[in-house]
Amino acid sequence: MRQAQVHLIATRAPDDVSGLEAAIAAGQIEPAAIAAILGKTEGNGCVNDFTRAFAVSALKAALGRSLPDEAVAQIAMVMSGGTEGALSPHLIVFERRGEPAAAPAVGRSALAIGVAHTDSLLPEQLGRMDEVEMVANGVAAAMRDAGIDDPADVHFVQIKCPLLTVDRIAAAEARGASVVTRDTLKSMGFTRGASALGVALALGEIAADALSEAAIGRDTDLWSGRASTSAGVELLNHEIVVLGMSRSWSGPLAIDHAVMDDAIDILPVRDALRRLGFAADGQLTAAERGRLVAVLAKAEPGSSGRLRGARHTMLDDSDLSATRHARAFVGGALAALTGSSALFVSGGAEHQGPDGGGPVAIIARRFQGER
Amino acid sequence: MRQAQVHLIATRAPDDVSGLEAAIAAGQIEPAAIAAILGKTEGNGCVNDFTRAFAVSALKAALGRSLPDEAVAQIAMVMSGGTEGALSPHLIVFERRGEPAAAPAVGRSALAIGVAHTDSLLPEQLGRMDEVEMVANGVAAAMRDAGIDDPADVHFVQIKCPLLTVDRIAAAEARGASVVTRDTLKSMGFTRGASALGVALALGEIAADALSEAAIGRDTDLWSGRASTSAGVELLNHEIVVLGMSRSWSGPLAIDHAVMDDAIDILPVRDALRRLGFAADGQLTAAERGRLVAVLAKAEPGSSGRLRGARHTMLDDSDLSATRHARAFVGGALAALTGSSALFVSGGAEHQGPDGGGPVAIIARRFQGER
Amino acid sequence: MRQAQVHLIATRAPDDVSGLEAAIAAGQIEPAAIAAILGKTEGNGCVNDFTRAFAVSALKAALGRSLPDEAVAQIAMVMSGGTEGALSPHLIVFERRGEPAAAPAVGRSALAIGVAHTDSLLPEQLGRMDEVEMVANGVAAAMRDAGIDDPADVHFVQIKCPLLTVDRIAAAEARGASVVTRDTLKSMGFTRGASALGVALALGEIAADALSEAAIGRDTDLWSGRASTSAGVELLNHEIVVLGMSRSWSGPLAIDHAVMDDAIDILPVRDALRRLGFAADGQLTAAERGRLVAVLAKAEPGSSGRLRGARHTMLDDSDLSATRHARAFVGGALAALTGSSALFVSGGAEHQGPDGGGPVAIIARRFQGER
Amino acid sequence: MRQAQVHLIATRAPDDVSGLEAAIAAGQIEPAAIAAILGKTEGNGCVNDFTRAFAVSALKAALGRSLPDEAVAQIAMVMSGGTEGALSPHLIVFERRGEPAAAPAVGRSALAIGVAHTDSLLPEQLGRMDEVEMVANGVAAAMRDAGIDDPADVHFVQIKCPLLTVDRIAAAEARGASVVTRDTLKSMGFTRGASALGVALALGEIAADALSEAAIGRDTDLWSGRASTSAGVELLNHEIVVLGMSRSWSGPLAIDHAVMDDAIDILPVRDALRRLGFAADGQLTAAERGRLVAVLAKAEPGSSGRLRGARHTMLDDSDLSATRHARAFVGGALAALTGSSALFVSGGAEHQGPDGGGPVAIIARRFQGER
Repeated sequence: MRQAQVHLIATRAPDDVSGLEAAIAAGQIEPAAIAAILGKTEGNGCVNDFTRAFAVSALKAALGRSLPDEAVAQIAMVMSGGTEGALSPHLIVFERRGEPAAAPAVGRSALAIGVAHTDSLLPEQLGRMDEVEMVANGVAAAMRDAGIDDPADVHFVQIKCPLLTVDRIAAAEARGASVVTRDTLKSMGFTRGASALGVALALGEIAADALSEAAIGRDTDLWSGRASTSAGVELLNHEIVVLGMSRSWSGPLAIDHAVMDDAIDILPVRDALRRLGFAADGQLTAAERGRLVAVLAKAEPGSSGRLRGARHTMLDDSDLSATRHARAFVGGALAALTGSSALFVSGGAEHQGPDGGGPVAIIARRFQGER
Repeated sequence: MRQAQVHLIATRAPDDVSGLEAAIAAGQIEPAAIAAILGKTEGNGCVNDFTRAFAVSALKAALGRSLPDEAVAQIAMVMSGGTEGALSPHLIVFERRGEPAAAPAVGRSALAIGVAHTDSLLPEQLGRMDEVEMVANGVAAAMRDAGIDDPADVHFVQIKCPLLTVDRIAAAEARGASVVTRDTLKSMGFTRGASALGVALALGEIAADALSEAAIGRDTDLWSGRASTSAGVELLNHEIVVLGMSRSWSGPLAIDHAVMDDAIDILPVRDALRRLGFAADGQLTAAERGRLVAVLAKAEPGSSGRLRGARHTMLDDSDLSATRHARAFVGGALAALTGSSALFVSGGAEHQGPDGGGPVAIIARRFQGER
Repeated sequence: MRQAQVHLIATRAPDDVSGLEAAIAAGQIEPAAIAAILGKTEGNGCVNDFTRAFAVSALKAALGRSLPDEAVAQIAMVMSGGTEGALSPHLIVFERRGEPAAAPAVGRSALAIGVAHTDSLLPEQLGRMDEVEMVANGVAAAMRDAGIDDPADVHFVQIKCPLLTVDRIAAAEARGASVVTRDTLKSMGFTRGASALGVALALGEIAADALSEAAIGRDTDLWSGRASTSAGVELLNHEIVVLGMSRSWSGPLAIDHAVMDDAIDILPVRDALRRLGFAADGQLTAAERGRLVAVLAKAEPGSSGRLRGARHTMLDDSDLSATRHARAFVGGALAALTGSSALFVSGGAEHQGPDGGGPVAIIARRFQGER
Repeated sequence: MRQAQVHLIATRAPDDVSGLEAAIAAGQIEPAAIAAILGKTEGNGCVNDFTRAFAVSALKAALGRSLPDEAVAQIAMVMSGGTEGALSPHLIVFERRGEPAAAPAVGRSALAIGVAHTDSLLPEQLGRMDEVEMVANGVAAAMRDAGIDDPADVHFVQIKCPLLTVDRIAAAEARGASVVTRDTLKSMGFTRGASALGVALALGEIAADALSEAAIGRDTDLWSGRASTSAGVELLNHEIVVLGMSRSWSGPLAIDHAVMDDAIDILPVRDALRRLGFAADGQLTAAERGRLVAVLAKAEPGSSGRLRGARHTMLDDSDLSATRHARAFVGGALAALTGSSALFVSGGAEHQGPDGGGPVAIIARRFQGER
């Protein structure tokens, strides 16, 4: 049977691959089994954050010493810039070991990882229903790849989506097509939002007839509680990683998720921890933290400028971008609950959770005695 | 008997005194009873943060319409810049109502407020044992003013202390005296640290013979769990506000405190909340938050560059000062516990709590039925 | 005859009025003669820059000790935040002394100051042709007030214009009217742009039929070479200050202007200095700088992302707003030419000079021997 | 005879090596001839600026496709972060072509490039006279390598020097040695300063008996007008590149230098331009700019907080580091003079030019007709 392995590796700099290389050298990680690498790097998470590309460059060079280039290119790499507050830079390496079993297991389910790549998108499709539908189909494919039938068993969908560039806009317009926006920065919000709505559609969180082109990037009442999307200039298609529970997979890892309704709505996350077997009384104990593998969350400043009625100043701070504020603050809230600061808290949460809140997924090792 | 009243007033800008004026107009606040005003303003909390002075200027003008200038000058005003994350700008107005009773009450104790002003400091005394002892005597005087005998009944001591300026250094040197540092910015750390050690000495947290001039600003093992100090250019002496519990005071308010050992050490704070009668199960409920009046905390990045072993990047971020990171993150942790973002989280915590941690005081309204 | 006096006063902080007060005490400035005060303050010049309001608050309090409140309210006060690079914080006080002469002088012209206030604008008129025309009429009125007939004699028009707030938008929509944008930040660009086009219309820089509602805020080929506009939340009408040359005025001061085509296009400014009698060979000498009274300039990053073909990174820097970059850089260029860093360089230059460039006005004292 | 070639190559991102690769592919650059690469990258130029390492990583990978690793390692690569204002990211590639002539030429001199590597430094020698002397010897060696006898013919010395790390300090202390500072950030200032004084000693700018350990990093009256030093964590020795004029070299390139006395002291730079044959009347014309190859300058905020008596706010800005302010402003001043924004303006100027000023070197192509 297949087995998912997940490794959280601390880094000392954006290009620090020494931990990954040590794990490979020690036989803990099989390069050929790596399906995806997520990483928090210490940039600003905004336009001029080169730590993400620097990290990817170093990871590709490191893996290229073990794998052919085509194999490296298949690994989804999603770097999220911004380790504000005490958030700690790290990599999360997802491995898929073993072979699919002939028949699904009768017993308990385990963490399952599915991957899919969509076809390339035309620039004029970006941020529109075409992208929503393309992603929805891709999520369905990744679910099949993971051996997950029931959308309720999906707990997190990480997507890397394309964005518009000046050249891509020009190419579309040369064909007589028009793009959703000529502002390349805004195109990142549109593609993240459309991709998140694609997840919501695939998972049945939103009915198809509730979606429309006009709602993309605008109607904050439409959201997925399990999508996490990120735009990258280096691709034209979508890389989709589905994380869920499946009886076709074995091993000690499990995943669950919660949706925070605002930046400090930690009780749903505590409930998810409890479903995973943690006492979660106040804060995870050191012993409990030994079982916590990874926490993946989205953070954004609420657009109302208020949190539970109290004014916040994130949106008016011209010295410090609102996303940096939000990651620090939500990071503090989740660290208070989990006792850990090695959290994958990322920004840019269009249609990913409610306005000012966001999805949180938790990957944990089961108790030894648990069955 | 005397009664303390504490009002938390949201502000819409650094110079927004409309809430204070409305409370005065409605008879909820008596200007002549105001002993101190603490405030969080939305600047950067660092050198070029003019929001603090702007707030004080507006408060003095507003109170000057009800009080003579000498009375306004007696009110301790301590503005803390920096509402990072979702921290919410606000004022905390401390009133002392009523007259001292002939004899202490037999019954329960209540929040007590004591105030003292030390003599002026000579520039060469700043950041040295002279300042430590001067502050220790001042804290003792403020305790007497509050009617508190036992140092164990003191839960928070807010001090505004002087700093060195180019002119003050020159004056000392003209007399042949030498100052602790010729760097005016560093003098702020020395005066905050010496003042905090003065609190520790007065409250018996540190024995006199454990203190030395060489330790000031250097030995992070020496700290007060109840001091919160802030340096201001506008004074040469110390303004000291002691908050504690006393049976000489009546009313519905109580105070307790905790010491966080690091930036996410919220369990001691939860214990303090429980001592004040809150269930504090996960996060204060909306009903419980109605009884929470104010939370006063110190936040600082740990000097080791690590939090529970995990690297943080606060100290290496040249775009964003470490104190801004720390306030956002600790603010998130405390907001996750209390459910509120109107928290007085301030930076600059030399000798105020352990390295990377800090004191937290909570002022709450007792349950109606409680006695 | 009337005489303009202009005082450049260095400040030590946003609320430093000691220089102004000293000049009043010394009889150098007559409070009742003050028509306008411009100031550079040391904030970020963006949304959360409270140094501007702090300065205005301190100036009003200081002048209120010499003048009735109504008189203080008539003084146009335009603070520009941001002293990046070595730009030096200062105030520029414009006085109008003396009485209009019965007949214009036969001899030479001198600096003339005209002031006008428009009627209040309805929110739905803001950023539209209504505002353009209202400002054009106001500029004409201010020219009459200054005794300037020929638009060619106008060298700088400083305008403070209103902006949209949430409340103003709601009021317009309650009447069934629609506003140019519901984004309050964007409304600042629209009102600055419409006001600048109003100046261009009044001065004949653009023909009426070349203007249209669609061009406002969009067509960067339309601009005034003499407008400098600034949006403020505290007013609903426009305060207009026209600076030019008139034979109805006497005194030693003169003004001229130039238009920089890009951020380093200093040769037109050198030409203007030469027209004012400076040698301007390389850099003004110390002796020449004694005659230089004030330099008023607009700075903006070019929207192409390039300066003379070379890529700049101002528009992609998420740590530092592009306007701060631009003020520092243009400030350096103009300081290299003038030898002075007390320059009023401000941002937000919609329709004020060509894309990436901007207008520069110079006020100077004539040579003693000059006639 | 030997011939220096210098190529200024614009970059589109820190890791953009496409221009370099194109120049190699076109035969304009011979990889084996490259002696040094300087670069301006678009980071913040401070502690957490990873764009420098990202650029070096990309350059090494690109050159590694043409050269063996040992040869790549010999190339001095000095990246300077920070393209504030309109400063434009670029690389400057220095090539040494041809073979030393048997005898020096009789005719005119040309740009000469000399390189030397010192031995490794012990941590306890850093920032002390040992480092000063080691660098002085290294500069002498690089002069010999360049064929320059007279120190007056040296116009720029670029040095990459080591810094202290926690591990290096520990190693020294384990041996019973003490280091100049235990603050790793401060060690960067000490090593840059000691290296600059080493240049001054080698070039005879300062007499040996005027130097002392106590003066390093403190006495701002001691400085080199031709040193530019930069600290890097990746080396333990010093990489020294001397640029000057020598009759042993041929070709169309020449170099000269100037020392700015403050941030806007451009007249000495104009004089240097004129010595190189430029009219430099106000600003270089487009035709003149075609002959300008590279401008190398140091920029720093003056420690007095004033520029020609006018207060600047660079040192008090907690939102934006003073070095970023200084680069933008000095960049504007030099761009106003040269008409170009592709300037290598770098910060960290301890003992490199007078306080608040700095050295400027200019490399230019001679006029065609010139001989």
